[in-house]
Amino acid sequence: MLRSPIRHCRNCGAAVVYRVPDDGDTRERAVCPACDTIHYENPLNVVGTVPYWGDHVLLCKRNIEPRWGKWTLPAGFMELGESAEEGAARETVEEAGAHFEMEDLLSVLSVPRVGQVHLFYRARLLSDRFDPGHETIEARLFAESEIPWDEIAFRTVRETLLAYFADRRAGRFRVHNLVIT
Amino acid sequence: MLRSPIRHCRNCGAAVVYRVPDDGDTRERAVCPACDTIHYENPLNVVGTVPYWGDHVLLCKRNIEPRWGKWTLPAGFMELGESAEEGAARETVEEAGAHFEMEDLLSVLSVPRVGQVHLFYRARLLSDRFDPGHETIEARLFAESEIPWDEIAFRTVRETLLAYFADRRAGRFRVHNLVIT
Repeated sequence: MLRSPIRHCRNCGAAVVYRVPDDGDTRERAVCPACDTIHYENPLNVVGTVPYWGDHVLLCKRNIEPRWGKWTLPAGFMELGESAEEGAARETVEEAGAHFEMEDLLSVLSVPRVGQVHLFYRARLLSDRFDPGHETIEARLFAESEIPWDEIAFRTVRETLLAYFADRRAGRFRVHNLVIT
Repeated sequence: MLRSPIRHCRNCGAAVVYRVPDDGDTRERAVCPACDTIHYENPLNVVGTVPYWGDHVLLCKRNIEPRWGKWTLPAGFMELGESAEEGAARETVEEAGAHFEMEDLLSVLSVPRVGQVHLFYRARLLSDRFDPGHETIEARLFAESEIPWDEIAFRTVRETLLAYFADRRAGRFRVHNLVIT
């Protein structure tokens, strides 16, 4: 879901120009010379879960690019009309076909390099049977010692797993706010 | 910054059609019949701070719509290329001209009705002198008993202030994850 540059106005289709708008803004935006629409581009939210079953967590082997074949937590782009936790729950159903109860927010990770903010919630699994969707090759439970650390798809997933296991050992969970550079 | 509907393709300018793409997606998107670009629309992040000075917090009286003349915490839309806390700090400089040190994440608020996720950080003020920008009529410190609760611009600001003062009384801060319906 990498976005192509804005070349044309979403409102009227005219070719845009890049300039700082006259409204006090300080950044260049794609501005339409025909109808004056200003086009903003902003970071995206990725929302997901750490589904756990006893001392195991659920990982999904990716059947899509990027990082095909690598392991990830269930997560995806948040949609309009849903809360962050609703989006995280939706992705967990879509990617793993899991049954679970949502719990607390665990991590908030800014990734300025790609313009994203990732939010992960803990999810208590109600079953160890999964029914992964087309984006997942395999959904499987891992103990901490079994996590394929060299085969984790994304830095945000790695940091969230590290935070989860550290908090689990400490006997209390908190929200981890991180920046991935 | 309400977004107009997508009528034309950002890539080639052709008129789009709304349909579910053939790639396994389940939602209608604006799809270009000429160049096949799929246009996604996703929630936006609003990032801000709770700047505090002793037992007072800084509020800004809005000089812009919506909610002109109402009081708010310094906050605004997160930009590409910055972390959530960098964006929150930038808005605090732009709207209040404050000097401060960023502290921990305090609140994460989904607002599905408008497709937004708000993130507020505590910020310890280093001075009680402010130099508000053009979006602010007045920047002023308030004790809890002085907060103009009926004149607060946004529900997310109200909930964040309530969380801040509750945590302050409790003697420990945590991250509050809320959904504003």
